[in-house]
Formats: sequence, structure tokens, C-alpha cells
Amino acid sequence: MGPLAIGIHGGCGTLARDLLTEAEWAETNRHLGDSLRAAWKILTAGGSALDAVEAAVVVMENSPHFNAGYGAALTETSEHEHDASIMDGATLAAGAVCATRRIRNPIRAARAVMEKSDCVLLTSSAADDFAARAGLEIVENSYFTLERRVKALASLKARKARGTIALASEAEKHGTVGAVALDGRGNLAAATSTGGFNNKPVGRVGDSPIIGAGTYARNGVCAVSGTGQGEIFIRRVAAYDVAARMLYAGRSLEEATGDVIDILGKHMIGAGMVAVDAAGRVVVPFNTLGMARGWIADDGVVHVATHDDVHRLSAA
Amino acid sequence: MGPLAIGIHGGCGTLARDLLTEAEWAETNRHLGDSLRAAWKILTAGGSALDAVEAAVVVMENSPHFNAGYGAALTETSEHEHDASIMDGATLAAGAVCATRRIRNPIRAARAVMEKSDCVLLTSSAADDFAARAGLEIVENSYFTLERRVKALASLKARKARGTIALASEAEKHGTVGAVALDGRGNLAAATSTGGFNNKPVGRVGDSPIIGAGTYARNGVCAVSGTGQGEIFIRRVAAYDVAARMLYAGRSLEEATGDVIDILGKHMIGAGMVAVDAAGRVVVPFNTLGMARGWIADDGVVHVATHDDVHRLSAA
Repeated sequence: MGPLAIGIHGGCGTLARDLLTEAEWAETNRHLGDSLRAAWKILTAGGSALDAVEAAVVVMENSPHFNAGYGAALTETSEHEHDASIMDGATLAAGAVCATRRIRNPIRAARAVMEKSDCVLLTSSAADDFAARAGLEIVENSYFTLERRVKALASLKARKARGTIALASEAEKHGTVGAVALDGRGNLAAATSTGGFNNKPVGRVGDSPIIGAGTYARNGVCAVSGTGQGEIFIRRVAAYDVAARMLYAGRSLEEATGDVIDILGKHMIGAGMVAVDAAGRVVVPFNTLGMARGWIADDGVVHVATHDDVHRLSAA
Repeated sequence: MGPLAIGIHGGCGTLARDLLTEAEWAETNRHLGDSLRAAWKILTAGGSALDAVEAAVVVMENSPHFNAGYGAALTETSEHEHDASIMDGATLAAGAVCATRRIRNPIRAARAVMEKSDCVLLTSSAADDFAARAGLEIVENSYFTLERRVKALASLKARKARGTIALASEAEKHGTVGAVALDGRGNLAAATSTGGFNNKPVGRVGDSPIIGAGTYARNGVCAVSGTGQGEIFIRRVAAYDVAARMLYAGRSLEEATGDVIDILGKHMIGAGMVAVDAAGRVVVPFNTLGMARGWIADDGVVHVATHDDVHRLSAA
């Protein structure tokens, strides 16, 4: 069995310390660890990178501390719309859903689209209906709503009305979760899931469900999941650009992700990525003050972080 | 003023000769010529590549002979859902809509998303509503329906029920229109629009509204619009892959588009592209028996074709 690796992100931004209580920051780190361990358990048991990234993302979708699934951002109409995608680096198969409203775990729906349909991308109520037919858990839209998000939306709308929107913390506006993995057979996979951003226009679709923009995986090259302002990830074809720089320009994973994050930074765009290459090297570059992130490389040590300080947890 | 160029496609496939009457084939060629001339008039008057590709696509959306706008394919529920995108190579700005039902010219809605919203991609009824607010022409869904498509859908469903779906002509199943242009200031642009394919699952989104998959433009490199099975264009990030091979591997436009079409052909996927580089060279590679296509290079001669024989029309 070759080297194993799992890397995750839970969104980047200023992540102001007073956004959460100390207990909530601690729980955020614990949930990052839970996400990593769920994936690691699969990888060490000989499971697939695809199963690992799905499991990692499901843990973050079920946590209130990330902008995906339960606890996701609210649209301008105080509802939730979710985008997600998954890609299998072994076959370049991919599945994605956008603007879903009733699927508890959108990443499972993306996987079902990949495996149980002839489509790559399903949108809106058709995606909800497909997920229900595929036997996935369906919930009321209000299941996803946290009081914290309701307050943040009200505050954001008030600031918008006063014309001080620029003062809104990036963490209130954006956020995404994602995972990349390398399994023992050398297969790479990537997955991304998001609730968009607070006060999002209804029907706006970001980069998370767009293969090549927010998510990309290809055996022998890399797996990538992005977080940040989705529109620029789409316009820069950011996730595939990492792979293309490695494939065609001979750049390393570190160099290729660094190139792309630098370009996004020059556009004054807060952005981050988690990526892994065919040798199991994990990188988590970002140009913001913080990014929720974590990884386990072949030594089995669990690393999690939200700001500069990286916590080494007990081995998985 | 630098060299000018416009290239268009109107979908690829077997394009069986008996699909249309001789008069209809002649009209198809005339409409390709009309599309090219609408764009050329803009370019020679000093207009932008962006205006040129939009105008070229609008002519094809309004023609009954292409699978976009009026005369587009029907979904499994005998309705229409449209996808479109546009990209400005000068700024990498982009706009797109997917699964729209009431916008007469979806490419105009994509342009409006790019210029009048903070989004790149809007989906479903939110895209319809946005287009209405932007002052674009709204029609009943039935406006798009041709008797020919109703018959083709019935025939396709009957064959599917009998298990002989593979006999269905590609031309009955797929189709897209697209345009690429170079203007006198060296700006590149690309645009793509489609009704998907006959018997399309409701909510399925193909590559046409996906920047990097069906559409890409970048000044100094190339502009690309694709046609064929959208899922493989998404999985291969086909349009941006052409640009990446030119940017990072030093391939010419001919080589890069040829590489990508060859890869799609190896997957037994019928595919075609129209592309233009920064010098105004237009290529129209495809691996099917036919592709509706046309171009005007700097000499002003109008070329249109659907199969092997290329017609030189009078200068634009």
C-alpha cells in the first residue's frame, strides 16, 4: 500500500477571534479533528480516497461551525441554498449539485449524481428530487438555520443599508468546506461543499460545484479544493489551473498552488486551498488571516489549525 | 487596428443528410452566414469582440436550425431549459445562466449577469427573474418549441422504451451554438448557448454555462467555445485545457485544440470546438461527421459549412 494522506479546509477569511467564544473555537478544532479521523479510518482500512473525502466533508456539513450543511449561510431571503461537488481522480468522474434546499448532506448528493446518473451537475429542486429518489436524507430548509447566522444576516443587511458593507468580516460573508485525499492504491479525490455566503442572491452559484474551479482531482497529479470568493475561482479556473501548471509547466504542488493563490491575492481576493499530490504531500496555502484546516500525512499525526498556531493532536 | 476574426459553431454530430430538407440545409447555411455577418459588422466598425460574439450567438438563438433559444431541444417533461455563458478575454470577466425557461436570448442574460451583477452564474427561476429585471425579452416556455423537436422527443422516448437508444442520431440528442472573436484592439471573447439535448433530465446542467468547460477567453492566448457531450467537457475542463496547453506547454492553437478533441475522441465522445488565437487564426476541429460552422478571417471572406464541403460566400 502506498502513502496515505487527507487534507481539509473549513473556509478562510479574517476569522476574527471574537467571532466565536473560546469554547466554540475549541469545538471548531475538535470538529476538524473529527473530520480528519473519519477519513483516516477509511484510508487506513484500505478504503478509497473518494469515500474518505466524502466522509470528511459530511462531518463538517454536520457541524455548526462551518458554512456548509447545518449552520450554513443564509441567502438574501433568509433561506439556504447549497452547492457541492466531488471528483474521482482515477476516472475523472465527477458529480455536483447546486442551489439545493432540502438535502441534509449535499456532498452525498454530488456523489450520487456521479454514480447514479448520466449527469455531472444537477440544479435546484431537480437536485433535491434526485437526492430523495437516491434515498438520501431530506430535511426542511429551516434545519440548516442557526441563530448566529440570522443575527449575522440582519447585521449585514443593516450595514449594507448604511453603506458600510466593506466593514463586514469576510468570515460573515464567505466560507466553504473541502477535502482532498490520497488512498493506498494511489487514487486521488477532492470534494467541496458550501452554503455560499450571507445575504447571497437567490440562485447565485459559486465555484464549489464547478469542476475545475472549486474542485479538481486527477491521479498522478493532484487533488484540489478551494475556498474564497467563488466568482474569481470560476474566472481563473483555479483548481484545474493548479493541475495544469503541474502537468504542463512542471511546477510542484507547492509552487502551483502558491502561483494561483498569489494571482488571486493580486486581485485583492481572499482565497485558500487544500491540495495533495500523488506522493501524498498536503499543502494548505491561504492569503487571509486565517483558514480552518487540517491534515494527516503518512505519519498519522493529526494537525488542525484556524490561525497561525497549528495544533498537533494525538495520532489518529 | 489589428487583425479581426470571428468563428462560430452550430453544433456537431452525425448530422444525417435526411435530418433536414435541402431547403432547410440551405437555410442553415444562410443563418450561419447571417450570424457571421452580424458579428463582422460590429468588428469592422471598431466594436468589441464581446459585442460580436453576443450578436453572432443571438442570430443562432433566433434561428430554428440550432439547438439554442428558439427551436432548442426539449427536456424529458417536454419543456425547455437553457444554459449560456460569455467571457471577456480582456478582463477575464464572465457571466452565465443555467436552466432558464423564459429568457428569449439566454446569451444576453449571461452578458447581463457579467455586467450588472456581482455573480458569474445564476440558475433557474432566479436567472429568469434577473433577466426580466435587466429589461431583457421574456417569453413563454412554449415560444421555443418546434413541431420537429416534439416529434424527435417522441421518437427518442419510443426508442428508449424499446432499448434501441443507441440508434438515435447524435444530432437528435445534442447540439450547442457558440462564437469566438478577436477585435481590432486585440481583445478576445467567447460565448456559448444551448438547450441541452432531447429528453434531457430536468435540472441537468451541461458545459455551456461552465467557464473553463464550454467557454473560455483570455487576451494574448485564445477564445474557445465547445460543442458535444457536456459532461466530458466538464470533466476534462476542455475549454481552459486548450488555453493551458498554449500558456504552459507552448502548443499552438491548432495543436492545443487538436490535443483536446483527440482526447475526447478516445473516450468515444463526439466533440467539436471553435477557437481563435491572438493573431486571429480560427480553427474549427471536430471528430464527428459534421459540424455546423463558419468563420471570417482578416480577408473578410465568409466561410460556412455543415459537412466536408466548405462554402465560400461573398465577402461580408
